[in-house]
Amino acid sequence: MNILIVNGPNLNLLGTREPEIYGTVTMVEELADLSAEFINNTILYYQSNAEGDLIDRLQASDYDALVINPGAYTHYSYALADCLKNVSVPKVEVHISNIYKREEFRQKSVTAAHTDGIISGFGLNGYRLAILSLNL
Amino acid sequence: MNILIVNGPNLNLLGTREPEIYGTVTMVEELADLSAEFINNTILYYQSNAEGDLIDRLQASDYDALVINPGAYTHYSYALADCLKNVSVPKVEVHISNIYKREEFRQKSVTAAHTDGIISGFGLNGYRLAILSLNL
Amino acid sequence: MNILIVNGPNLNLLGTREPEIYGTVTMVEELADLSAEFINNTILYYQSNAEGDLIDRLQASDYDALVINPGAYTHYSYALADCLKNVSVPKVEVHISNIYKREEFRQKSVTAAHTDGIISGFGLNGYRLAILSLNL
Amino acid sequence: MNILIVNGPNLNLLGTREPEIYGTVTMVEELADLSAEFINNTILYYQSNAEGDLIDRLQASDYDALVINPGAYTHYSYALADCLKNVSVPKVEVHISNIYKREEFRQKSVTAAHTDGIISGFGLNGYRLAILSLNL
Amino acid sequence: MNILIVNGPNLNLLGTREPEIYGTVTMVEELADLSAEFINNTILYYQSNAEGDLIDRLQASDYDALVINPGAYTHYSYALADCLKNVSVPKVEVHISNIYKREEFRQKSVTAAHTDGIISGFGLNGYRLAILSLNL
Amino acid sequence: MNILIVNGPNLNLLGTREPEIYGTVTMVEELADLSAEFINNTILYYQSNAEGDLIDRLQASDYDALVINPGAYTHYSYALADCLKNVSVPKVEVHISNIYKREEFRQKSVTAAHTDGIISGFGLNGYRLAILSLNL
Amino acid sequence: MNILIVNGPNLNLLGTREPEIYGTVTMVEELADLSAEFINNTILYYQSNAEGDLIDRLQASDYDALVINPGAYTHYSYALADCLKNVSVPKVEVHISNIYKREEFRQKSVTAAHTDGIISGFGLNGYRLAILSLNL
Amino acid sequence: MNILIVNGPNLNLLGTREPEIYGTVTMVEELADLSAEFINNTILYYQSNAEGDLIDRLQASDYDALVINPGAYTHYSYALADCLKNVSVPKVEVHISNIYKREEFRQKSVTAAHTDGIISGFGLNGYRLAILSLNL
Amino acid sequence: MNILIVNGPNLNLLGTREPEIYGTVTMVEELADLSAEFINNTILYYQSNAEGDLIDRLQASDYDALVINPGAYTHYSYALADCLKNVSVPKVEVHISNIYKREEFRQKSVTAAHTDGIISGFGLNGYRLAILSLNL
Amino acid sequence: MNILIVNGPNLNLLGTREPEIYGTVTMVEELADLSAEFINNTILYYQSNAEGDLIDRLQASDYDALVINPGAYTHYSYALADCLKNVSVPKVEVHISNIYKREEFRQKSVTAAHTDGIISGFGLNGYRLAILSLNL
Amino acid sequence: MNILIVNGPNLNLLGTREPEIYGTVTMVEELADLSAEFINNTILYYQSNAEGDLIDRLQASDYDALVINPGAYTHYSYALADCLKNVSVPKVEVHISNIYKREEFRQKSVTAAHTDGIISGFGLNGYRLAILSLNL
Amino acid sequence: MNILIVNGPNLNLLGTREPEIYGTVTMVEELADLSAEFINNTILYYQSNAEGDLIDRLQASDYDALVINPGAYTHYSYALADCLKNVSVPKVEVHISNIYKREEFRQKSVTAAHTDGIISGFGLNGYRLAILSLNL
Repeated sequence: MNILIVNGPNLNLLGTREPEIYGTVTMVEELADLSAEFINNTILYYQSNAEGDLIDRLQASDYDALVINPGAYTHYSYALADCLKNVSVPKVEVHISNIYKREEFRQKSVTAAHTDGIISGFGLNGYRLAILSLNL
Repeated sequence: MNILIVNGPNLNLLGTREPEIYGTVTMVEELADLSAEFINNTILYYQSNAEGDLIDRLQASDYDALVINPGAYTHYSYALADCLKNVSVPKVEVHISNIYKREEFRQKSVTAAHTDGIISGFGLNGYRLAILSLNL
Repeated sequence: MNILIVNGPNLNLLGTREPEIYGTVTMVEELADLSAEFINNTILYYQSNAEGDLIDRLQASDYDALVINPGAYTHYSYALADCLKNVSVPKVEVHISNIYKREEFRQKSVTAAHTDGIISGFGLNGYRLAILSLNL
Repeated sequence: MNILIVNGPNLNLLGTREPEIYGTVTMVEELADLSAEFINNTILYYQSNAEGDLIDRLQASDYDALVINPGAYTHYSYALADCLKNVSVPKVEVHISNIYKREEFRQKSVTAAHTDGIISGFGLNGYRLAILSLNL
Repeated sequence: MNILIVNGPNLNLLGTREPEIYGTVTMVEELADLSAEFINNTILYYQSNAEGDLIDRLQASDYDALVINPGAYTHYSYALADCLKNVSVPKVEVHISNIYKREEFRQKSVTAAHTDGIISGFGLNGYRLAILSLNL
Repeated sequence: MNILIVNGPNLNLLGTREPEIYGTVTMVEELADLSAEFINNTILYYQSNAEGDLIDRLQASDYDALVINPGAYTHYSYALADCLKNVSVPKVEVHISNIYKREEFRQKSVTAAHTDGIISGFGLNGYRLAILSLNL
Repeated sequence: MNILIVNGPNLNLLGTREPEIYGTVTMVEELADLSAEFINNTILYYQSNAEGDLIDRLQASDYDALVINPGAYTHYSYALADCLKNVSVPKVEVHISNIYKREEFRQKSVTAAHTDGIISGFGLNGYRLAILSLNL
Repeated sequence: MNILIVNGPNLNLLGTREPEIYGTVTMVEELADLSAEFINNTILYYQSNAEGDLIDRLQASDYDALVINPGAYTHYSYALADCLKNVSVPKVEVHISNIYKREEFRQKSVTAAHTDGIISGFGLNGYRLAILSLNL
Repeated sequence: MNILIVNGPNLNLLGTREPEIYGTVTMVEELADLSAEFINNTILYYQSNAEGDLIDRLQASDYDALVINPGAYTHYSYALADCLKNVSVPKVEVHISNIYKREEFRQKSVTAAHTDGIISGFGLNGYRLAILSLNL
Repeated sequence: MNILIVNGPNLNLLGTREPEIYGTVTMVEELADLSAEFINNTILYYQSNAEGDLIDRLQASDYDALVINPGAYTHYSYALADCLKNVSVPKVEVHISNIYKREEFRQKSVTAAHTDGIISGFGLNGYRLAILSLNL
Repeated sequence: MNILIVNGPNLNLLGTREPEIYGTVTMVEELADLSAEFINNTILYYQSNAEGDLIDRLQASDYDALVINPGAYTHYSYALADCLKNVSVPKVEVHISNIYKREEFRQKSVTAAHTDGIISGFGLNGYRLAILSLNL
Repeated sequence: MNILIVNGPNLNLLGTREPEIYGTVTMVEELADLSAEFINNTILYYQSNAEGDLIDRLQASDYDALVINPGAYTHYSYALADCLKNVSVPKVEVHISNIYKREEFRQKSVTAAHTDGIISGFGLNGYRLAILSLNL
């Protein structure tokens, strides 16, 4: 099973950006760990700060399951939401922090209604749990 | 008269995406038909999933009239709206589905105030009606 | 095909009322033109300032398609909306001005969800485009 | 006791309009049944699609009790509400469907505060229950 | 100067309806007094419970000034408001009671923006003050 | 037919609590009357001030029809609403007073969407009408 | 009868401030005219830009009737509203412009509920009409 | 590690209630599976329909980690939220369905801000993922 | 005079729960002090986490005055509010913290309108001040 | 300890203004009583109808504790709130009536977040309780 | 060029009030510096806690440009806003702190629409930048 | 000091777009002037219509201070706001027009809370003032 992990804007800074919220592990390190742990899965990764590029990537058909952290686009990108609606493979939305503990605008998700499940607040382990769920 | 048709995010999937809403005709087929029908017009076409690219395209001056379906950007892209405000040729906003029959967020348009007319709910015929209106 | 055009309140003043918004052509002139242009259609016309009379007219069954401009009733007449819901022929809502360029209350339509398509902002040509769409 | 039953807009179509919501019995049939069942009451009936006509009818004084289904006017006609406020006989508001199961705008009633009781969701039996209540 | 006084729904009951709010003088008596007092004016009078009839009446051109009490239509009839917008003679909106002392919905007027002045809270004297203002 | 009548919080005080709103008849007296009148029905009765106990009672399967007055839980108990959704026998919501004549918060019902019909404003006769409706 | 006219903030600039809205007549000139016209009344006048001073003035007992234009305090001064509530002589609120034609915040009056009547939109004649009403 | 699983109102009906949303596996079966899978954990279980009982249970100190599905209390029980705030062991909120795909009121969680993480939309596997997360 | 002190959910943890907000004195200690200070009063005490139990307790008639801290139920329990409305002895609502310094939802009280006075922000001294007020 | 009591607008009328709400005791009488009762405190008093004067007074440093009833300024004076934020002595906000029983705008306090405690609904005894609290 | 600097309520405490937000430099020191730096300008200064006094000062005509920090009046004083509208010299609104980083009510400015420019978040340097802008 | 000036969507049209709002000077001319004036600063410049590109540019580390005009992204790009939050050099937000004089949506800034100061309404001089502030 090919699992595509997609990270939205500013998540290329994981490990350095606001470490008190997002921790100090980089995504590169995390991806290495995940690939080692889930040997039955091929982990694909894509990150972009651009809404249009994320949509372009999601429209490809080279993956069997999706783990997506849309970053701030979660809260207002109806374009990304429309795109996700057309993704027919299993899909999980991940948020590193517990969005219910943060600013009010982060508690609204326009994308979540178009994924199967949501995992929020487990740090980088959220990606791990998402992949676990796809293997259940 | 050069007529530029601009389609926003996810509209490259027309004909395959949610056919119960958007139908099964692709935009390529539709454009062929339109070019054949409106022999006095040159039909230009541009589609992008990216807000910035759409703005870049609209800032060009190679067209005499505009037909735009901003897709989901209709509902929140003030940047696109600002851009449209500066387009001084005749311009028509088209929506394939009747936006008043869909989710509430789709009933708000931040771009429509900066076009001359709106046509919504006629399927791909909406593009046809828009071009007709520009030829009246 | 019998096409019924229904105009709501104050639209009997077309051509004299707020000409900077609605133009100087009267509905009588427009109807003459439309009848001349669409020789395969019989154009029926009804205008009333009264909500109840409009509903009575719409409940008749002497037409094969409907073009309706509900005027100000667009924005609050749930009675008219309920009535339109029961009209089973093809139906198009027309607004002479671009409702997104006007007062905020005019951007809400309680009737539009019960028509097939909406055409707004093309002046009296809106009626022409509506009939065109019904003949497509 | 003269009981006036008043039905608002589109309720002349009962039995044919949206039968999945309103059933297939016509109001004529229902009135016949009610007259037969309540032999101690004289059942008067009035239906109009027009707000003003409904008000005119309610201002008459030929009835001892009122059963009213204001249809869509329930939700916005302050004129009808003001009129009901001046009706001093016992009065019951009836809705055929359960208004709490329908669109949100149908859950607001501007008229109900000016009737004694409300019965909603019992189909045409709502009229029967209303008359029963007036005979208690 | 011909002054047209127009009263909206339920105001035919003035003098009997809710006398604690509206007093016990009937409109007939008031009109007699006003005609006697303002001998330089011809007082025309029209009352209807029907929105459409009020609009029809206002579209006539037999008056030089308008005094209108739209009753409950004040609060939601955009159709009447649109109509008033096209009345080009001097026009005054009158409310018998002080609308700011009543229910919240009565404090919103969709018609007042289309009259020149508003007089509220002076009982039937409001009509007198309105005519006085038109003679200043 | 076993009919279960369920009363929510504070309704054990019927007959003594706010008699100007709820009257002076106690529920015990009313139940005696109802049992006498409806000899073909077995009337079961349950009252509790506790949300959880009401849910426990509703989850039992010893009744063929339900009459429920959820009291103040009507307005905010999504837990009770979820529970009612799973009750598959005929069910009627009763309110003793006309909820549209009371405080604004009482005009919102989160439970009513999960019952078949609503009867409000008939005093204790509301229970009588509810049982009548179940026997129709 | 002593009539106190009270003007709120910025109304000392009448005749010079925004003449397209407020005209070019100064309050001094207007007061001279009013005193000449109403020889049976003693016209007292007070203007202040300060909320506290206006309240101090209104708490005096040297007047038999009040005409007040609270200026911008109309829209938010609950302190002035509380004060007006305790003024037991006849009192009229005047606005020079039609507040329903201006910014939305000017359409809310927190003081009007504590006066007997409101006159708005008649220019400086509003004061004249107010005094006339007090002499009716 | 003792892990307490707490289920709120109506969740005792899992496996029978709305199986199209919640599936057909009962909680008893699920708990058996979980105990078999997580042999290093002791799984404690508590379910109640009563808000107060849930709070009582949570105030005990016999568990090292918490998995809670507050059911409908999620959306309005500030009492439960206050209680959770005082639970100092690791805690995870689970929802069986994807709350972003359901009614709007289900998208608000007053309890989630007081747990560490949220897992929603994975059916009964949500409990499994929650326990997995506590063992990471 | 028998004074009943009623504490709502989570207040059994006073002295241990969030001591930076609620202090370190337990309610047992506080009650001992109050009994010692107010020797002319009999202090009764009741605490429960359950809404229904609180209502049951308040319906008893063994007290001459009430001091109630409804905890989080303050903000949404209309059932408790209805119950308080029927308590006819003097009654005071107490909050340990200043509710205006806390989350916005804590600034709304649905119960306070049904008590005589409110005391908020004085720590456990709030109970003392409440009893003092009942003895004035 | 010097205790400054500050009263806002219209509170100079205590004892005469709306006695059904505020009672018939004047502040002078109350202050005499308070001075007699609290012989260990020096009671200072200041009242003004002017927001600016109240701020000026509060900026002085001649008091050790503050009791303030901001009157209507409670509900909108952010200037007074900012000022109170800078008062570092113990401070109590008093309202004579129970603000939760009055108009909705009186239930919002912009000042209370900047005092230590609030006492509302005890009539003039509120001042007494406030001073008592400062002496605890 | 005479430049009038006007400071609103509580800004007389600059340098002592909330130094973590406003710094420790007093306005006297700042004014000395500004006068020394801008030798081609005459710097006038006025501060008051009173809305009315600020309006009185602004109505004078002894200045060629205005720098105003309305303090908390920024957020609700329509009276001050009306006054500023009539000030026809160049005018700049200054806020010491970045109002977008503070409470939500501070992000609304009713006065800013009536100045030419806004400078916010630069500490006392905001006054310097404002004067610089007036000299550009 | 390297100062990066970043301009958002449509600001490449400065000097031609809506000159009545934005003036006729182009950004190229302005940048030339600024470089000439601030010889101790190196002025870097970047403009893009694309949200993602702006984020990419801001994530670079080649500048010591930032001047940013996010154009329409100011009002809804939480992605850009998150990015700015991670920019740790001094940063100033500039708007050419006074945003408080324009449409309501332009008065909300989601980015401003993550810059140090805001300068709005000074035309292209806003960039000048921003650089001046960074040199203070």
